[in-house]
Amino acid sequence: MKSALCRKLGIEFPLFAFSHCRDVVAAVSNAGGFGVLGAVAHTAESLEIDLKWIDEHVNGKPYGIDLLIPNKMEDKEGGLTAADLEARVPPEHRRHVASLLAQHGIDTADLWSAGQGGHDYTDNMREGGAARLLDVAFSHPIRLFVNALGVPPPSIMKRARDKDILVGALTGAKEHAVKHAKAGVDILVVAGTEAGGHCGEVSTMVLVPEVLQAIEDYKDIHVLAAGGIATGRQMAACMAMGADGAWTASVWLTTAEAETTPTVKKKMLAATSRDTVRSRSRTGKPTRQLKSAWTDGWHGESAPDPLPMPLQGLISRPALAKIDKLAASGHEGAQRLATYYVGQAVGLMNTEQSARSVVYDFMKDYADAAQRLAGTLET
Amino acid sequence: MKSALCRKLGIEFPLFAFSHCRDVVAAVSNAGGFGVLGAVAHTAESLEIDLKWIDEHVNGKPYGIDLLIPNKMEDKEGGLTAADLEARVPPEHRRHVASLLAQHGIDTADLWSAGQGGHDYTDNMREGGAARLLDVAFSHPIRLFVNALGVPPPSIMKRARDKDILVGALTGAKEHAVKHAKAGVDILVVAGTEAGGHCGEVSTMVLVPEVLQAIEDYKDIHVLAAGGIATGRQMAACMAMGADGAWTASVWLTTAEAETTPTVKKKMLAATSRDTVRSRSRTGKPTRQLKSAWTDGWHGESAPDPLPMPLQGLISRPALAKIDKLAASGHEGAQRLATYYVGQAVGLMNTEQSARSVVYDFMKDYADAAQRLAGTLET
Repeated sequence: MKSALCRKLGIEFPLFAFSHCRDVVAAVSNAGGFGVLGAVAHTAESLEIDLKWIDEHVNGKPYGIDLLIPNKMEDKEGGLTAADLEARVPPEHRRHVASLLAQHGIDTADLWSAGQGGHDYTDNMREGGAARLLDVAFSHPIRLFVNALGVPPPSIMKRARDKDILVGALTGAKEHAVKHAKAGVDILVVAGTEAGGHCGEVSTMVLVPEVLQAIEDYKDIHVLAAGGIATGRQMAACMAMGADGAWTASVWLTTAEAETTPTVKKKMLAATSRDTVRSRSRTGKPTRQLKSAWTDGWHGESAPDPLPMPLQGLISRPALAKIDKLAASGHEGAQRLATYYVGQAVGLMNTEQSARSVVYDFMKDYADAAQRLAGTLET
Repeated sequence: MKSALCRKLGIEFPLFAFSHCRDVVAAVSNAGGFGVLGAVAHTAESLEIDLKWIDEHVNGKPYGIDLLIPNKMEDKEGGLTAADLEARVPPEHRRHVASLLAQHGIDTADLWSAGQGGHDYTDNMREGGAARLLDVAFSHPIRLFVNALGVPPPSIMKRARDKDILVGALTGAKEHAVKHAKAGVDILVVAGTEAGGHCGEVSTMVLVPEVLQAIEDYKDIHVLAAGGIATGRQMAACMAMGADGAWTASVWLTTAEAETTPTVKKKMLAATSRDTVRSRSRTGKPTRQLKSAWTDGWHGESAPDPLPMPLQGLISRPALAKIDKLAASGHEGAQRLATYYVGQAVGLMNTEQSARSVVYDFMKDYADAAQRLAGTLET
């Protein structure tokens, strides 16, 4: 495709694939799209291993990474230790989680033992932890660094620029988009409410043209549409509205390569678009995820209000890790509780395919859609 | 535009405009689109007057009407009179409404006097009342009858067919769309959660391709995308995804012809896409509307849960009628409370224009979008 963004990044097709799975990242870049490794849950060591692996598998094709770095590094929790944070979790919330799991036949005796939640990556969202990950990332030939919490701090912007790495930022509201544009990001990922994970309230269909209108004076910025996109025709729809490409995430979760657990993958393949919920039950901020006994358990009359970020994560992570482990061993209660971030596009994800084949389907479907639309202009 | 739907209806451009205002309906049909009169709040007499006026102003151009008729005429409220229904409204809810208005400086002494809510059109949503409106409608050259509550009852379907009138139905979920297709509707209006008025949870970007996939075996059915569409580029986006046209409503509310009150029109022109809320506070079912002190008043901690339909309407109608009247006379509290149905597209509605000029803008913007997209295919 002939486009300024494709030229800038050296890609054929402006389909951006966010994934925690290095196999997906490499497969998408190899197929002509642009893979972006979600690295917030990595350690510096595991990131080095994954980026090295990607370098060895993309034959020089471009790829990027995605982190969550607050613009202001003031760090509300100050110098609080993990133990300080743990102490702030009300007993009522721990009881609610334990009772929810117990209702579904899960033994919760060791629920709060250390290590149940896996690696705690809260530190990656602070300046020090993020800098360690960036040191690793910047030692590899990444072409794009995306910050899922808006504009990254100026120091990081500068480091990226010095290495000719493009900087992207996620946004779910027009007002934020304008701030990001002023701060000089290269790529704005404009995500509608139908997106999986953290999401705002405005739909992709409205937010994309609204943001494009608001930032029309910033000529060098590229807009990627996100939220709900799992097919080439939707990507074409967004580009008809003026976006420069599509940012996708959910659609890769049901690919053969994905890290998604078998239980959750099966649920996703069966789900309709109405089987997601925007809920604070996972991180403390609204995230869209698959409806399950876990999310239902936070929306009933007797459920406590979820805790603010990062406290809700301290109780959801160990519980969901335990649920995933038991679900994998066939535990039916755990299978009912199992959930993961996913957008409403889950209703369009009905077959397991390789990531490469998803990219090729996108390309064909995109071309068909563009031709269908052009056909309506014939008189 | 060359399309089966345009041929069938004898129109140039498949832009459908739902409006309660006959001037908008006629202007859109005259400009090459298709106007649809929202008639649920009409009496048989006022409908006769409006349709006669439209006939005199459209020069034979096609138009349609929209009603709300339940498929099953069993009528949950049985033979309940208006007084029976009034008696079912809990005193707590009346107190809440009166207190909300009083907080904003409105004298509520005559709030519940008869006639405050204007004409009560609940009867239009039952078989008898709807039949009277249809008798009027079918005596005019309408080309389309749309039912906003899904498939109309078989008796009405037959009456429409006998007169070669197309039948349309609104839907906000894939499962319902399949039922409507099986029941034989000609046009499915697939409305995303960003739509004004009654709306589901799934976004237009996801719902349109999901429904198209689900009904692909029904070759004769036409799909109109709805929800969030206020520009030609969004219409093009939906048609790139495979829709046959766009169904719009909010965008007409800020036209020069619209019946919208000056207070609400001014609020709409200033609003961003985040200034709407999906709330049960107006009809008892979730409807998207402009955020205001009224909607806020139903979402606070101390607010009672809104009543089910049709009871909530019995308390919201008189209150909102009073608010609109006072707002028009400059009452500041009433102006804060004033609200109306509108979709997230309100963020794209920034200037007051004539309905005709909106249609022409759509046409130009549509063509530009289709060409932009076709341009990406060039190598």
